Amino acid sequence: MMEQQTISIPTQGRATIDITGEVEQILRATDIEQGLCHVFLHHTSASLIITENADADVRRDLENYIARLVVDGDPAYRHDQEGPDDMAAHIRSVLTQSEITIPIRAGRLALGTWQGLFLWEHRYHPHRRNLTVTLTSV
Amino acid sequence: MMEQQTISIPTQGRATIDITGEVEQILRATDIEQGLCHVFLHHTSASLIITENADADVRRDLENYIARLVVDGDPAYRHDQEGPDDMAAHIRSVLTQSEITIPIRAGRLALGTWQGLFLWEHRYHPHRRNLTVTLTSV
Amino acid sequence: MMEQQTISIPTQGRATIDITGEVEQILRATDIEQGLCHVFLHHTSASLIITENADADVRRDLENYIARLVVDGDPAYRHDQEGPDDMAAHIRSVLTQSEITIPIRAGRLALGTWQGLFLWEHRYHPHRRNLTVTLTSV
Repeated sequence: MMEQQTISIPTQGRATIDITGEVEQILRATDIEQGLCHVFLHHTSASLIITENADADVRRDLENYIARLVVDGDPAYRHDQEGPDDMAAHIRSVLTQSEITIPIRAGRLALGTWQGLFLWEHRYHPHRRNLTVTLTSV
Repeated sequence: MMEQQTISIPTQGRATIDITGEVEQILRATDIEQGLCHVFLHHTSASLIITENADADVRRDLENYIARLVVDGDPAYRHDQEGPDDMAAHIRSVLTQSEITIPIRAGRLALGTWQGLFLWEHRYHPHRRNLTVTLTSV
Repeated sequence: MMEQQTISIPTQGRATIDITGEVEQILRATDIEQGLCHVFLHHTSASLIITENADADVRRDLENYIARLVVDGDPAYRHDQEGPDDMAAHIRSVLTQSEITIPIRAGRLALGTWQGLFLWEHRYHPHRRNLTVTLTSV
């Protein structure tokens, strides 16, 4: 059995957004008990990560770290039409993920105790980000 | 239903190659309308990425960025038998992806408007790179 | 057909551990000949990578490289309750993978000649790491 659904998440500019609940909601609307949940992001200037969901400082430190690693507006970039966050966003996307698969067990996403699924907006301005969620079971 | 096929892509040395068309071709030879397409690269000195396919400067900037991040021939490397690009290629591979899953919708890879699937050759010299494409549907 | 199993791997502190054999063992206990093997790590301070399994210097160089890229105990980190390796481990995890899918062919993991699947412990102290392996076939 396979179920595929597209969702759209609004962002408020550069930040991480916990989307575990949105994906769980799609899963719960099915009767899948065991299987796999694939989440795909249809954009190249945002990304998906799994990281700690308990202490918000983790995501603040991640943002600060990557902002130093991938400098906005580096004069070496040629692709800069959309501003200093344009090329930096593509690099951040390539260093993280565009798609993640999570096991389904007992009708739930089988995440670890401290794991959350996050959409990471890398652009300064708000965007609407489209994702396709594909659930498969036996 | 599941279809699995191996393809081989020749590279001309360090560069990104758009392989979206090659994977689409395998998909179109099946009658799969909805499902998932998994692409796996059988090498540790090249990688797979999804990034912008419109402005070639994005891939030029990515290459320049990663060449500064992962220095070729760093004297700290012990694994250097095959030259200055040897260990750098393994590191670039670990910081990006060896395998990517893309949803299939309406018989096509459901990529975003600006997304392309690229093989990134990290070695200086041409290589033949093997990939396994696995398509699954309901 | 789908088979899902959870395994637990003890680590001895910061290091890479080849877990290809453990995953192969689960695969061999089934009669799956062709399909996909998904491996998911239920932690945010360790990761999964595919890299060269022949020369151990590759993994030594990877560890040295990432230790310079992601500095332990950086005073910029706010999330530091568990020590200097705490936030660094989360960053290393986000820059690598929490889950990897490998094709199955002829009843074996279809890895390249030099590819191994490794669990990368990013914390200084030993941990027990839980993984879920999901095998799917036609």
